[in-house]
Amino acid sequence: MNVTVLRLGHRYARDKRMSTHIALVARAFGAQKVVYDTLDMEIAESTGKICKEWGGDIEIEFIDSWRPYIQDFDGDRVHLTMYGININDCIGDLKASKKDKLVIVGGQKVPSEVYSLADYNVGVGNQPHSEVAALAVFLDRLFSGKELERDFLGKKTIIPQACGKKVVEKRR
Amino acid sequence: MNVTVLRLGHRYARDKRMSTHIALVARAFGAQKVVYDTLDMEIAESTGKICKEWGGDIEIEFIDSWRPYIQDFDGDRVHLTMYGININDCIGDLKASKKDKLVIVGGQKVPSEVYSLADYNVGVGNQPHSEVAALAVFLDRLFSGKELERDFLGKKTIIPQACGKKVVEKRR
Repeated sequence: MNVTVLRLGHRYARDKRMSTHIALVARAFGAQKVVYDTLDMEIAESTGKICKEWGGDIEIEFIDSWRPYIQDFDGDRVHLTMYGININDCIGDLKASKKDKLVIVGGQKVPSEVYSLADYNVGVGNQPHSEVAALAVFLDRLFSGKELERDFLGKKTIIPQACGKKVVEKRR
Repeated sequence: MNVTVLRLGHRYARDKRMSTHIALVARAFGAQKVVYDTLDMEIAESTGKICKEWGGDIEIEFIDSWRPYIQDFDGDRVHLTMYGININDCIGDLKASKKDKLVIVGGQKVPSEVYSLADYNVGVGNQPHSEVAALAVFLDRLFSGKELERDFLGKKTIIPQACGKKVVEKRR
């Protein structure tokens, strides 16, 4: 199952770190691609640097219009929103469906059309918090935590330690 | 089991949104308190507004020095770091221990002393991503997802919908 994340409503200055964290979370938690509806090459650059050092592939794409992108997606379209069905009540169905997933994360104002274009509106809880947090928990549940055990085949690899830091560097 | 989150190294301008998201995630995912080692009343104000509207109590505290705070904490001190033991390999022990938890989340540069003061250094995966994401996934695992089903007893309550938004307002 491939996962694409669609980040809606990125604002160039205000959201830069948040939108970059979206890409890093997507990469670390098993997605293949992140799509933004606003061009911001800094996001692509900072994510690219991480991939070059730590491995893992995450494709970054910028599109002009989210509407046809959502409409044409072949798979389950999942919109993360605090107004949606609690993840505890729908993650079973989403895991059972082996279709590719488009995970849509917005900012504060998501057009109402997104709710109707989505196949699932899912609340990672029904309280306001963070789109970065919602994405991470959703992917962690979708992949049952196994996404955190992949080998990213990077130049640098962490050897987990009970105390301190251990990083090995490989020529690949 | 009570959970306190300690956010280290908040930088006034650059980290404001990220540090506020830490507080909102702490609240939404079942922590009781968030502690910052840098005074920033805007974080307290924006979190307070959310609590006033949506309910739930989260205590915000500002301290001068993290060292004695960590040392004196009565419970399990858990430092979230990508260099730590993978959460998949230690969350069982942390759930089995019924002690209160201090969950320490840093920014990019965490003093090495924090690693030795912590009882557990835990990696929410061993890849760089986001402290907001790490906190959310850690708390979601710690509470087995049940934290997302609590009633926050707010003025506003969301009635989860398959499509659209439904909010009821109550006088409490």
